[in-house]
Amino acid sequence: MTEDENQPLLDESGRHHTYTSLNAYITTNDNHERTGSHTTFATGEKLISGRYESLDYECDESEISHMEEKRLGHQHTRRLAVLKWVIMLLIGICTGLVAVFVDFAVKKLTKFKFSYVQNRLDTCLSEHCLFTPYLTWIAINMSFVLVSGLLILWEPAARGSGIPQVKCYLNGVAVPHVLSLKALIAKVLGVIFSVSGGLAVGKEGPMIHSGSIIAGGISQGKSSTLKFDFHIFKHFRTDKHKRDFVSAGAAAGVAAAFGAPVGGVLFALEEGASFFNQQLTWFIFFASMVSTFTLNVVMSAIDGHFGDLSSPGLINFGLFKDVPYMWFELPIFILMGVMGGVFGALFNELNLRLTKFRHHYINRHWVLIIEVLLVAATTVVIAFVLIFTTMNECRPIKTQVELNSPTIQLFCPDGQYNTMATIVFSTPENAVRNLFHSEIGTYKAWSLLAFCIVYFCLTCWTYGIIVSSGLFIPSLLIGASWGRLVGIGMHNLFPSIYFNPGKYALFGAASQLGGIMRMTISLAVILIEATGDIVLGLPIMIVLTVAKLTGDYFNEGFFDIHIALQSVPFLPWQSEVFLSRLSALSVMSAPVTKLKTVEKVETIFRVLRAESHHGFPVVDHHADETNNERAGTFQGIILRHQLITILRKRNFISLNDSLRDYLTLDDFRESYPRHPSIESVHLTDEERELYCDLRPYMNLAYTVSHHSTLPRIFSMFRGLGLRHLVVVNDKNEVVGMITRKDLARFRMIHKKGHTSIEELGISN
Amino acid sequence: MTEDENQPLLDESGRHHTYTSLNAYITTNDNHERTGSHTTFATGEKLISGRYESLDYECDESEISHMEEKRLGHQHTRRLAVLKWVIMLLIGICTGLVAVFVDFAVKKLTKFKFSYVQNRLDTCLSEHCLFTPYLTWIAINMSFVLVSGLLILWEPAARGSGIPQVKCYLNGVAVPHVLSLKALIAKVLGVIFSVSGGLAVGKEGPMIHSGSIIAGGISQGKSSTLKFDFHIFKHFRTDKHKRDFVSAGAAAGVAAAFGAPVGGVLFALEEGASFFNQQLTWFIFFASMVSTFTLNVVMSAIDGHFGDLSSPGLINFGLFKDVPYMWFELPIFILMGVMGGVFGALFNELNLRLTKFRHHYINRHWVLIIEVLLVAATTVVIAFVLIFTTMNECRPIKTQVELNSPTIQLFCPDGQYNTMATIVFSTPENAVRNLFHSEIGTYKAWSLLAFCIVYFCLTCWTYGIIVSSGLFIPSLLIGASWGRLVGIGMHNLFPSIYFNPGKYALFGAASQLGGIMRMTISLAVILIEATGDIVLGLPIMIVLTVAKLTGDYFNEGFFDIHIALQSVPFLPWQSEVFLSRLSALSVMSAPVTKLKTVEKVETIFRVLRAESHHGFPVVDHHADETNNERAGTFQGIILRHQLITILRKRNFISLNDSLRDYLTLDDFRESYPRHPSIESVHLTDEERELYCDLRPYMNLAYTVSHHSTLPRIFSMFRGLGLRHLVVVNDKNEVVGMITRKDLARFRMIHKKGHTSIEELGISN
Repeated sequence: MTEDENQPLLDESGRHHTYTSLNAYITTNDNHERTGSHTTFATGEKLISGRYESLDYECDESEISHMEEKRLGHQHTRRLAVLKWVIMLLIGICTGLVAVFVDFAVKKLTKFKFSYVQNRLDTCLSEHCLFTPYLTWIAINMSFVLVSGLLILWEPAARGSGIPQVKCYLNGVAVPHVLSLKALIAKVLGVIFSVSGGLAVGKEGPMIHSGSIIAGGISQGKSSTLKFDFHIFKHFRTDKHKRDFVSAGAAAGVAAAFGAPVGGVLFALEEGASFFNQQLTWFIFFASMVSTFTLNVVMSAIDGHFGDLSSPGLINFGLFKDVPYMWFELPIFILMGVMGGVFGALFNELNLRLTKFRHHYINRHWVLIIEVLLVAATTVVIAFVLIFTTMNECRPIKTQVELNSPTIQLFCPDGQYNTMATIVFSTPENAVRNLFHSEIGTYKAWSLLAFCIVYFCLTCWTYGIIVSSGLFIPSLLIGASWGRLVGIGMHNLFPSIYFNPGKYALFGAASQLGGIMRMTISLAVILIEATGDIVLGLPIMIVLTVAKLTGDYFNEGFFDIHIALQSVPFLPWQSEVFLSRLSALSVMSAPVTKLKTVEKVETIFRVLRAESHHGFPVVDHHADETNNERAGTFQGIILRHQLITILRKRNFISLNDSLRDYLTLDDFRESYPRHPSIESVHLTDEERELYCDLRPYMNLAYTVSHHSTLPRIFSMFRGLGLRHLVVVNDKNEVVGMITRKDLARFRMIHKKGHTSIEELGISN
Repeated sequence: MTEDENQPLLDESGRHHTYTSLNAYITTNDNHERTGSHTTFATGEKLISGRYESLDYECDESEISHMEEKRLGHQHTRRLAVLKWVIMLLIGICTGLVAVFVDFAVKKLTKFKFSYVQNRLDTCLSEHCLFTPYLTWIAINMSFVLVSGLLILWEPAARGSGIPQVKCYLNGVAVPHVLSLKALIAKVLGVIFSVSGGLAVGKEGPMIHSGSIIAGGISQGKSSTLKFDFHIFKHFRTDKHKRDFVSAGAAAGVAAAFGAPVGGVLFALEEGASFFNQQLTWFIFFASMVSTFTLNVVMSAIDGHFGDLSSPGLINFGLFKDVPYMWFELPIFILMGVMGGVFGALFNELNLRLTKFRHHYINRHWVLIIEVLLVAATTVVIAFVLIFTTMNECRPIKTQVELNSPTIQLFCPDGQYNTMATIVFSTPENAVRNLFHSEIGTYKAWSLLAFCIVYFCLTCWTYGIIVSSGLFIPSLLIGASWGRLVGIGMHNLFPSIYFNPGKYALFGAASQLGGIMRMTISLAVILIEATGDIVLGLPIMIVLTVAKLTGDYFNEGFFDIHIALQSVPFLPWQSEVFLSRLSALSVMSAPVTKLKTVEKVETIFRVLRAESHHGFPVVDHHADETNNERAGTFQGIILRHQLITILRKRNFISLNDSLRDYLTLDDFRESYPRHPSIESVHLTDEERELYCDLRPYMNLAYTVSHHSTLPRIFSMFRGLGLRHLVVVNDKNEVVGMITRKDLARFRMIHKKGHTSIEELGISN
């Protein structure tokens, strides 16, 4: 055993080490100065948090794993395949049902609210007590939103849309509690109350998170929260299997939310998958398909026309039929893309600043709750102000009947409805549909402009307060309103040509969404599927592409900003070319605490207590004979939880004995995913003098030469889903260890056309 | 240097080695017998051909590559990104234009043929010489098809649909001439003449191949055939970059053929990509988008309504609007999926047998040409027989006018048309559209049945003759005809309910296509985009899934069968679990010819002349001092073409000298992709006594421990795009080498519910 166990070497939390290696890098005479870019040193929020663990997507190649395979044989493999289909089916059905539940509950609560207030209003119109219904309205909204806020205090992992967390999970970072049952409950109930409470939020983002939790839960066949275990599906209790199911769950969530099963698959691929593989894609596709289908069947049944499968998703933009476009409209679409990119970047920047402000000054529970209530009240007040300033905008009710969308009469004569009240007071989904399909002349330009600005600010403020909230629909609504404005403008400029304002609203919506989220292909397909029109697919793609290019000039995508703010060691798709000047030597943590293939129990126990690392390289046990610290060739990697299990199960031998009673994979799976800590292990003095044979349990890990450069290490991490990568020298001796945090530290910043490398610090 | 250079060890063509290692594996006492499956030994066509080279998708990490990066700096990276966009734009435009050209030419030739024959027919109807127009018809078709056949004799790489070849290329196998300019010419002209010649072929598959060739050509900025070089884009002259562009070209081809840009992206991913990455997907998406758009603009202009972007693809199924489905139809769709799977498997089996027969007995050029002419003549004769037996099936012409589809009057009264003649004599695209959209009662059940059976057999016979031909449309047509039969059957069973026969034709078509090709998500999206209807998306997915599951029970997908027939070392998506019992030791080629970091010119020259390997491991040059053959730790890999370039450029040093004049990457790129052979190198005796320093040029390759098992090696090969993988022992000494052929040798066979492992031989 080496003598350096007390040094934080393979330290996933070692800030001082980080700077050591950076300095080492800078002062080396390897003539590899960075040119053409400057290095920004880590300050403030520019940190990688040490509290995130990595997930382990590597294949297990330990001796016991081969033994299990051999024992279970061929039939087992086939049984697992069938089980996978079953799980995918269940994921699809459950996700679909949860989506139906959310939709049903929101409708019921909203209806209750409307009828109650309408009732009061009717009484008051005659009695001149208009402030009573308004106060009632505010009170109801505030209490709904309060429920949502309290749920997040109960389970903070359910805050926001959950998409950043799901992205991180699929990227390989274990975000705490992100897949817990508590998070599901808080998410589902929370989103119901925040949408019903009239906030500028959507229920689609949370559906994606909910789908992921459902998938994670079902695939494990047990719940740590409820302390039950069905003992089925136990073979899927590995990070690798669980990730596959979770990506299917996320896809099923998208499929249910937007009625877009193909979009769901692409979302899972675009946002998560460095692990694309044909078979998995097919499984994901199946889950998405089942999810849409379940939602479709149940929603049709609820709406009273069982069997007519016509409600594919939670959101229904209404079909765009026979809405052609002409080639001379393309420059306008491109311009709209630029606008979406600029507005999106502005939105992201404002929300970033607000989030930082909130991070510093709004910490305590009661302040957070007051902010939530304040947002709820402000939303209503602003809505009223908007309506009163546009009181006279009444339209005949007939077109809205076709859209099957609720209308609000307010001060309008009978047979007419108040246009602004209808988009302000209905759910955001209905508002989007109205903007997409109302005939020309429905909205006045100034009203739309006011609405657009107000809704932009409200949405920006709302995302980040402690409720469960989605950003898709609000983004679409902002974009639809300015898009429709563009349409009205075109109509006024060229009165001889008919410009369908709904079409422009759609492109505005796509552009705004693209400018904020910066996704391309999945958004395009989601929008195509949700509008049900292929013909508009091409301009939608163009608009999204331009919006992304424009937005990327200014800053990062919305979710990426939030991931960075949370100091998650997120690995981007590929390393930048600049980083090829960094070699394994300058990136790795070194020296590393090594264990020998046959190691003394006492040593293992001491190492585990002294260090917080999650993996240890195992080296040849003849090493100590030479008394050379670096000697001992690399044999494999053993994980912390495996060592703890070995200690807990007393799988010990005496020095000259050889191991006979192997632990099985079941022993190691028992406690997945919440492994006991080393503090739970108590050993007698006799036990400490015994030995552990680690060879049957260690995994044959990948190694990399110390000459390798960052791009190669990057492609191994992403392509193979690694958690630990051992750096070896020419003689296959361990010289260092690279973990996800070592790579995530180097981040490229593209801002206003400039590119620079940032090296982030690592915090605890 | 070791003494074993003359042994074919790292032999990419060493059949005897293969069996050695298999025997070694079988006789080892490692208790790893295969259970639950039996091993089939390689016989006959069950071979991996040694003539295929692998492509190298690994990142270059040689010293000179880092030097170039440093020299070119940051601006260069940005310039490359811009260049990539430009190339993607060009790929999209050119692919779109080629698609337009094919479509235009087919239309003109078909029109010429029809008007000529119609002319003769009109003359002859009065003069009772009906056989003259028929003979004319046969003669025209035969001469068109003859042209197509002769083109393939000129460039055999253009035979068939080209999809298997593109799949192989994207998988990492260099199929000879697959991306040559000659292949493009033969493909494009060939498909025009074979479609115009009335064969049961489509022009969509060849579009995918054409797109790939266009992309390969444009991205290189030069042509080896035409011997010109624009000297731009030279930085993209690596296998890795070229593959990215080719996948974009394939996607653009799909986008142009089906008007399905999203389907194109998914096709590239499903069929090719083990290299999924967000940025590349976006590039591919852009190329597809541009391709559809170009086609759309030009086709609209040709059709006389410039600016109205309404012709998204070559094929146009006609929009399915307001075609709902009820839940009780789902079991029927599932049943249709089963039928598609069974018929597809039958088709694949018959074609496989026919191809084997053809392989053995139809080899000579004149026999091949006679077969082509025979197929052309038979197709026409059968068409006439079909028409004469269904002579009285006339329908009023009005519905066809709406479909904008040509009709054939034949013996029908004026104002009516002959239904069978219309589907038999128009292009397959028109026939599919007719079956999808004609009103109920248009076709008689017996006629459809006869047509279906006849077309099934004709298609099966036609695929494989030496013409350029696609299988998409014929498959759709077969499926559409039996699907419509099912619709008619439903209508007769339940006369009270309206079953749209066109909808059933669509599901039949989807099912048949899925049963033959076994693709899922890309086919689903292509069909959704081509029919323009999202509502039918869900049942289409169900049908495709069921068809694939059913078909897979019997045999492999059509293209996979053809890839296997061509003995291509194709790597599937993932290794099967069984193979985890094979370790690197039993799979690798060993021993391996190694070179030292500073190696004598004479030795290099001798090794290159004696061996045909494409990569050599480089070991520490202090190795020989110990005089131990296995000594010398692994340093990197050097490729054959690099060594040849070093020799050709006389980059030599004397023993105690050190290298000063480095070759640059440009020197190595000069001859890409057709590198000179070692026979072109002539060295003087003095030169042979000098040394080469290989260190600046060798690539830091990945290594794997000799304990590793096949699944791990597999995921490295697929995930990292490897060509060579060096196997090292505990001390980092080279013990063997694994190439693609070593992995492709082990193939899982799923047939009629049984699973077995086949070990294929390697042929020369």
